[in-house]
Amino acid sequence: MVYLDYAATMPLLPEVREAMHKAEGEFLANASALHTPGHLAMNEVEKVRALMAEIIGAKPEEIIFTSGSSESNNTVIRTFEGCEIETSDLEHHSVLETARMYRSESGRSEGRPKLYSYMLANNETGEILKLPAKGEGEYLHSDLTQVLGKMPINVDELGLDYATFSAHKIGGPVGVGALYVREGVPFKPLIVGGRQEKGRRGGTYNVVGIVGFGAALKKLKSCNTPVSYATLVSKLRNLLAQRILAEVPGSSLNTDIGEGKSLPNILNVSFRAAEGESIQLYLDAEGIVVSTGSACAAGDIKPSHVLMAKTGDAEVAHSSIRFSFGLENTEADVDRAMEVLPKIIDKLQKISTIA
Amino acid sequence: MVYLDYAATMPLLPEVREAMHKAEGEFLANASALHTPGHLAMNEVEKVRALMAEIIGAKPEEIIFTSGSSESNNTVIRTFEGCEIETSDLEHHSVLETARMYRSESGRSEGRPKLYSYMLANNETGEILKLPAKGEGEYLHSDLTQVLGKMPINVDELGLDYATFSAHKIGGPVGVGALYVREGVPFKPLIVGGRQEKGRRGGTYNVVGIVGFGAALKKLKSCNTPVSYATLVSKLRNLLAQRILAEVPGSSLNTDIGEGKSLPNILNVSFRAAEGESIQLYLDAEGIVVSTGSACAAGDIKPSHVLMAKTGDAEVAHSSIRFSFGLENTEADVDRAMEVLPKIIDKLQKISTIA
Repeated sequence: MVYLDYAATMPLLPEVREAMHKAEGEFLANASALHTPGHLAMNEVEKVRALMAEIIGAKPEEIIFTSGSSESNNTVIRTFEGCEIETSDLEHHSVLETARMYRSESGRSEGRPKLYSYMLANNETGEILKLPAKGEGEYLHSDLTQVLGKMPINVDELGLDYATFSAHKIGGPVGVGALYVREGVPFKPLIVGGRQEKGRRGGTYNVVGIVGFGAALKKLKSCNTPVSYATLVSKLRNLLAQRILAEVPGSSLNTDIGEGKSLPNILNVSFRAAEGESIQLYLDAEGIVVSTGSACAAGDIKPSHVLMAKTGDAEVAHSSIRFSFGLENTEADVDRAMEVLPKIIDKLQKISTIA
Repeated sequence: MVYLDYAATMPLLPEVREAMHKAEGEFLANASALHTPGHLAMNEVEKVRALMAEIIGAKPEEIIFTSGSSESNNTVIRTFEGCEIETSDLEHHSVLETARMYRSESGRSEGRPKLYSYMLANNETGEILKLPAKGEGEYLHSDLTQVLGKMPINVDELGLDYATFSAHKIGGPVGVGALYVREGVPFKPLIVGGRQEKGRRGGTYNVVGIVGFGAALKKLKSCNTPVSYATLVSKLRNLLAQRILAEVPGSSLNTDIGEGKSLPNILNVSFRAAEGESIQLYLDAEGIVVSTGSACAAGDIKPSHVLMAKTGDAEVAHSSIRFSFGLENTEADVDRAMEVLPKIIDKLQKISTIA
């Protein structure tokens, strides 16, 4: 199998598995309990919190562990229920739909804060976006799910009040996320009813999962730094881009692969007169795993809202494929993809009713 | 270590660890993705959904996977925002506080449904409670977190419209829960923005966690059935109760250990003129792990709301300890506890200012 779907989920790092398996045996207690095994479990949670804070330039008490990015996004947006909430058109559905649901219909009201929710990089195209400038009484949230580990992050330099993170996009476990909440900004818990996370998120601490997240963060800090990661991964990504443009007629990049224009791991390509899901299925039959749009929107017959917002062209949106790379990929994976891709596109273009 | 805190969390079953470790290697993809590894992952999720449904007498499509009981409880209660919401006084904080937050202040309003949220058994005392009768336009939710695996459950016989479950109370992983939602009843997602769970709960499927939950459910179905479990565990629980009453002066049970009166695994005891947290700390120093109140309320200086509601006596509430058993416990654990408990209580009673 050639796995080119790292942006959907990254397989567990060996270090993460090892750390989790160890923790499973050691930290069996409820971390909120006032006995020794409880304290030991809590200790592990706090170590990961401190590491996460350090990596993004925050204080440990500004980090809340959640069940993942969707929960983190929902928590922030819902805090601003009844307020003006402005987002980019390119956000994940857990921001877009939530903003639509909770925002005030009548815009900004006197004395109420305003929230901006803008991702720093898009999950489908990898495009790096500009964050908006905020004024008095305005707050900025960014969904950094795709950014962690791919670009250095400093919440102060970015001017962030809230930020969303997920463990499984950096080789940690699914079901664990983090939410950065700047000290003193508005906050309303989404999951209520426990003293955990200082009353900001109820629910038994997922100690093993958090330990796994910690192992992935540790790896990111020591070896897979955003800089070393980008160097390795962008080389393969750019190679695939160049080969597709050269070898597949009717192909066009939806990702600007110029330095600093996009995340180093994502390549979104449209193929004229070929349908994205058909391409994906044919590639899948050859053992090559890619995405159309975001995995969350998969099964949806609507074209990707991201590509529609970017291009306004339903055909481009419908004919797009996201390739996303990880450190495990090699040039051989690019070779293998390019062995089959031109033939698949050619076949699809020939039977197409569009062209 | 003598672990008598199974009601706070149960260590992972060996079968669960094995299933999860296997899944970690096999199901690496995002279960929402339309490629083979995605389908394989989704397949595993659906198998567990069917098993969970079977165990509680529901249909698979009535099961939603969540991050745990707190999320499940919050989801149901928030669905009835602005409606009348009635709960028992003995509920977990994720029900009590949520109901306080979302219920209409003015009681039932014309045309709006009413929600009852009543647990079937209490987490601190194990007491089995009566569920209320519901009328037209009324719905019944029960937090069955402590009940799964301890008593047979049939949602139809219990007349339930919603029910909350957690994996880690039956030897599955923390961070995975389930929510039963009867077909056709009101429902509002708490975590919005993904097609997962038919749009009822956004967020990448926690495939490995759900597989672990499945392994725990499978064990429960085949070996640790509620009946066999109750037989084994209640014997130890009752033995400890009898020995405490006989050997510790000033002790009184907050759990009715009569057949069918309480869950088989929980024993809540008060010790006159001894403070619960002190008892817990002394027991901890001897390697005996127990709880005061619920672990979630630990660190809280207020007496347990459950014991206050039951007894109205702050001293009884403050001097309580919850022992909770699992299948790994043996008579030797009871012996060990009874070796140290009388001495600890005696010491605390002597220095007490209350007595």
